[in-house]
Amino acid sequence: MKLSALLIAIEVGGTLAFAMSGLVEATRKRMDIVGVFSVAFVSAFGGGTVRDVLLDRRPLFWIQNEAYLWLVLALVVSAPLWLRTLRHKLGGWLMELADAFGLGLFAISGTTIAMAAGMPPLVAILMGAITAVVGGVSRDVLCNEIPKVYRGHQPYTLCALAGCSVLLVMHALGVGEELSSLAGIATATGSRLLSVALDLRLPSWLSTSN
Amino acid sequence: MKLSALLIAIEVGGTLAFAMSGLVEATRKRMDIVGVFSVAFVSAFGGGTVRDVLLDRRPLFWIQNEAYLWLVLALVVSAPLWLRTLRHKLGGWLMELADAFGLGLFAISGTTIAMAAGMPPLVAILMGAITAVVGGVSRDVLCNEIPKVYRGHQPYTLCALAGCSVLLVMHALGVGEELSSLAGIATATGSRLLSVALDLRLPSWLSTSN
Amino acid sequence: MKLSALLIAIEVGGTLAFAMSGLVEATRKRMDIVGVFSVAFVSAFGGGTVRDVLLDRRPLFWIQNEAYLWLVLALVVSAPLWLRTLRHKLGGWLMELADAFGLGLFAISGTTIAMAAGMPPLVAILMGAITAVVGGVSRDVLCNEIPKVYRGHQPYTLCALAGCSVLLVMHALGVGEELSSLAGIATATGSRLLSVALDLRLPSWLSTSN
Repeated sequence: MKLSALLIAIEVGGTLAFAMSGLVEATRKRMDIVGVFSVAFVSAFGGGTVRDVLLDRRPLFWIQNEAYLWLVLALVVSAPLWLRTLRHKLGGWLMELADAFGLGLFAISGTTIAMAAGMPPLVAILMGAITAVVGGVSRDVLCNEIPKVYRGHQPYTLCALAGCSVLLVMHALGVGEELSSLAGIATATGSRLLSVALDLRLPSWLSTSN
Repeated sequence: MKLSALLIAIEVGGTLAFAMSGLVEATRKRMDIVGVFSVAFVSAFGGGTVRDVLLDRRPLFWIQNEAYLWLVLALVVSAPLWLRTLRHKLGGWLMELADAFGLGLFAISGTTIAMAAGMPPLVAILMGAITAVVGGVSRDVLCNEIPKVYRGHQPYTLCALAGCSVLLVMHALGVGEELSSLAGIATATGSRLLSVALDLRLPSWLSTSN
Repeated sequence: MKLSALLIAIEVGGTLAFAMSGLVEATRKRMDIVGVFSVAFVSAFGGGTVRDVLLDRRPLFWIQNEAYLWLVLALVVSAPLWLRTLRHKLGGWLMELADAFGLGLFAISGTTIAMAAGMPPLVAILMGAITAVVGGVSRDVLCNEIPKVYRGHQPYTLCALAGCSVLLVMHALGVGEELSSLAGIATATGSRLLSVALDLRLPSWLSTSN
């Protein structure tokens, strides 16, 4: 299956953003280089790999485009050269920013691929959310924590779902692929950054104390 | 692959029962709606998804029967309307009951599908246990706990294995599919409920203190 | 796909070694027979199953060679007869030894299978590491611990990567398959045992305290 140039650009950006969020989390746990690479790798490729396995797409996107592997490897190996400076300049926002861009980029890539595979709208939206969220969920499971996206009560998966829905609606209205994709990414990433900036909170779904 | 009416009925019942057990567990952790839906979704579809991936069946059963997705979504969204009343009436038994029915229904569905795929008896029984147990194991991993089925020492997986074995033996003896399935479900669910009611315990397999 | 006699011997040895390491870990947690079998099963088959799913090989190696299942089952059931004596004689070295052999055997089997599937060198090496490490990672996740291989700071995955690289280089130089495989296994298992004996340590990749 030939990926369009747009899809490749989306996947490269999302891969770098998520690998960096995994890198930051793993260094926080003081892991060695193997641990840091593994967590960065799972954060970057976990969501897309699960999507490809569920849809039975082979070769997997990171095997088909081996450059992704070298990219993440280079990111991890070169991190001592730039991570501290970047963190110093950007502070706590670094990870939130990388994560929000990964969220939007992966959600749109997942939904686009699922639509191309002929999935119905609900499944295509779910595949977008799975692509965007499973990498971070796997990262947290490997770090022995309850996934942040389930207990954070800050909109995260909902932002991905909103972006995927915008993409589907614009696609159904006949808007071009590039514009629909950009609008979807902007919706997901923008609403996520807004949620962080305004510290928006979702209520617990059901209280069980009574 | 066309599912028989019996298999569909089994899968719908098992899906609802396991989604409800995930729903109860997630609300206990005070998750937001995304977390509750995700845990309910993984509890309901985790076992069958792993079975389908291991056997290379596509589309996955919840993609082929998109209605299952809407069913779980409706269950989660409508939960505030009925969950409290149901819990009040049934108390701690609610989750045990839902879980025991999910156990029996999923075990028989997994073994039936594996047999239809030409698997040998031992693999067919294992696929039944995987279908029945992996959803709950994933739920516990996502909730950052050691899976209850491994440390509980109360018969659970053994009940699933017993039900699957009854199905296989009756099938080998030439008994009809409906009767064999019902007997298998009754064996698995019944022995599980009995284990809970009598508080049966398995010994630790090996002590390592000496 | 027909496995060569060499590959079968490698897989049998690796399966037994990893199942035993899972068995020892699960008994340490005082699990019942179902828990012990499940953890031994996941330790032994987790890495190869993920490799087969990622490469889309079916039937899975433990379904194709059902004897592996009976082997692990026999190991778990017979453990009370020999485990205590073996532990008494070998002490803490028992698990390290079994683990180091499993590491080398599975790494070489994973890389060999990936090469046979036409994967490029970097992917073939990664598949060797995945085959060798994912079983142990899954075991630790099921036991609710951060995977030892990520935080241990003792060379483990690096030993697998070294063994796979030796195999690839010797293969590229035209050395025969048997000799290359043995050299690869010796490199991985030997360097792992040396790391344990000398208590070698890797530094944390990046400190984030400043």
